[in-house]
Amino acid sequence: MLLLPFWLDAAGVFVFAVSGALTASRKELDILGFVFIGSVTGIGGGTLRDLLLGRLPVFWVGQPDYLLVTLVASVLVYFTAHLVERRYKLLLWADALGLALFCVLGARIALMAGTDPVVAIVMGVMTAAMGGLIRDVVCGERPLILAREIYVTAAVAGAAVTVGLLATSTPALLAEALGIVTAFAIRGAAIRWRLELPTYRSRPGRDYTST
Amino acid sequence: MLLLPFWLDAAGVFVFAVSGALTASRKELDILGFVFIGSVTGIGGGTLRDLLLGRLPVFWVGQPDYLLVTLVASVLVYFTAHLVERRYKLLLWADALGLALFCVLGARIALMAGTDPVVAIVMGVMTAAMGGLIRDVVCGERPLILAREIYVTAAVAGAAVTVGLLATSTPALLAEALGIVTAFAIRGAAIRWRLELPTYRSRPGRDYTST
Amino acid sequence: MLLLPFWLDAAGVFVFAVSGALTASRKELDILGFVFIGSVTGIGGGTLRDLLLGRLPVFWVGQPDYLLVTLVASVLVYFTAHLVERRYKLLLWADALGLALFCVLGARIALMAGTDPVVAIVMGVMTAAMGGLIRDVVCGERPLILAREIYVTAAVAGAAVTVGLLATSTPALLAEALGIVTAFAIRGAAIRWRLELPTYRSRPGRDYTST
Repeated sequence: MLLLPFWLDAAGVFVFAVSGALTASRKELDILGFVFIGSVTGIGGGTLRDLLLGRLPVFWVGQPDYLLVTLVASVLVYFTAHLVERRYKLLLWADALGLALFCVLGARIALMAGTDPVVAIVMGVMTAAMGGLIRDVVCGERPLILAREIYVTAAVAGAAVTVGLLATSTPALLAEALGIVTAFAIRGAAIRWRLELPTYRSRPGRDYTST
Repeated sequence: MLLLPFWLDAAGVFVFAVSGALTASRKELDILGFVFIGSVTGIGGGTLRDLLLGRLPVFWVGQPDYLLVTLVASVLVYFTAHLVERRYKLLLWADALGLALFCVLGARIALMAGTDPVVAIVMGVMTAAMGGLIRDVVCGERPLILAREIYVTAAVAGAAVTVGLLATSTPALLAEALGIVTAFAIRGAAIRWRLELPTYRSRPGRDYTST
Repeated sequence: MLLLPFWLDAAGVFVFAVSGALTASRKELDILGFVFIGSVTGIGGGTLRDLLLGRLPVFWVGQPDYLLVTLVASVLVYFTAHLVERRYKLLLWADALGLALFCVLGARIALMAGTDPVVAIVMGVMTAAMGGLIRDVVCGERPLILAREIYVTAAVAGAAVTVGLLATSTPALLAEALGIVTAFAIRGAAIRWRLELPTYRSRPGRDYTST
């Protein structure tokens, strides 16, 4: 394990844990409820990635430092969330940053495990989307992934940029940084300006009632 | 891996991806939302089966063709769903076909991995039920498995027929075909005629209010 | 595998299966619906524990006796639940007992697999919480974990007592028994007297509207 992925991963775990603990605050849980939801959200995406790739036991079993990261994030939110003007907005941005970090890291780790580039992109997207999904499903919130604003697209773009650049002679650090920036910029713009791709809308089918 | 299971599996993945994409259309997601929900639904059951059996990395990591299948199914639904008269009905039938294919295939693969016949039946049922469950939970829909019409029963019957026949000298192809037909016929009849097994109904307990 | 863990595990699987089948009765499913929900709830927590630790295939694949336990529990509930005065209360207590058994057993098995004490506690908590979470998410019920009464805290305490005592020269049997009693006493007291830890409540932030 290189040094870089640890810090990237820890940053992703931290911001997802923050988003989880903020969701716990919306549910008015107690402090260990915050830690549970924060931890499950923080480590959920990477846990799924490791399970799917067969990297067992999963990453945090061997490196309990990650659990310390989620603990700190959750307790911090418990004691400071009331200071934040608009908690839902912070939750959205923490989720966006986590999405950007995890789509790149998931793709990178999949490549290091020897997968196909396409599989690496899919793995990046699943890693990125799953933490938030688990948070929303466990907390009974409407999954962010079902929101109209661009979401999956940002993760696909970030993972694809990194995987594409790594296939050229781009240094890994640069390829990762550009992937993260791409994903965060797209998702951030979507949040800021409520951007949507054309969404599916039922168009009238064949009409039997009128002539 | 024999040739047959690939095609069976690909067919199951395809129809479950269709059911997932149709659910995405009910949620009016964008095209990558369709692909995400379609993919998660299509590969979810088999992914769980591989995880539980310890066949890692899971099947689609080594064979990205399955991802192409879910991509094609999802994009196809995105561009054609408006042509379908009754999308929910199509979703039900796609789910039924996926259920029939996956209960048999899950059981077969479990047997090939050396499990007990009972475990193989359970694995078939879980494989079959889980794709749809993931779809419904992720999309915030009421799980089909909670519907009154026969559902789990069809999967149990299909898996049991295949496992039972394979224990005799029946050729694998025939055992699989009969299992699929059994499960699909039972579930199909349940959808068509709204068949229910006797469901649990609270009967009055001891009554303290009247004499 | 020692004799003890099997019985502990089987007891935990049984009571969680009962809680699952009771939830199925609230949803008025048919008998195989009871068996499905009962089984998924009963084996869900241990399955997650085995996946995370890389103990594959998961426990019930090699020991189908556990499936017999969930089958018996589910069928028993199907035929007797109407005799119970207050089914939701029974569900709460079955869940509490399962929580107590699984937090200790999950921690113990993690330690035997060579993890850090902190990871063992986390694994115990996840094993304990996940069965009920899966039950509630699959059935579309509000997760018990989101209830105000102490929940995660009980599992943390039980796992911590066992892990702490095992680090001293306490015999395993005693360490386990005390952990189970601790968790069950805390959760039981929380149910009986509706105990809550201080829950998070939004306090007014900086106020811009008034002077």
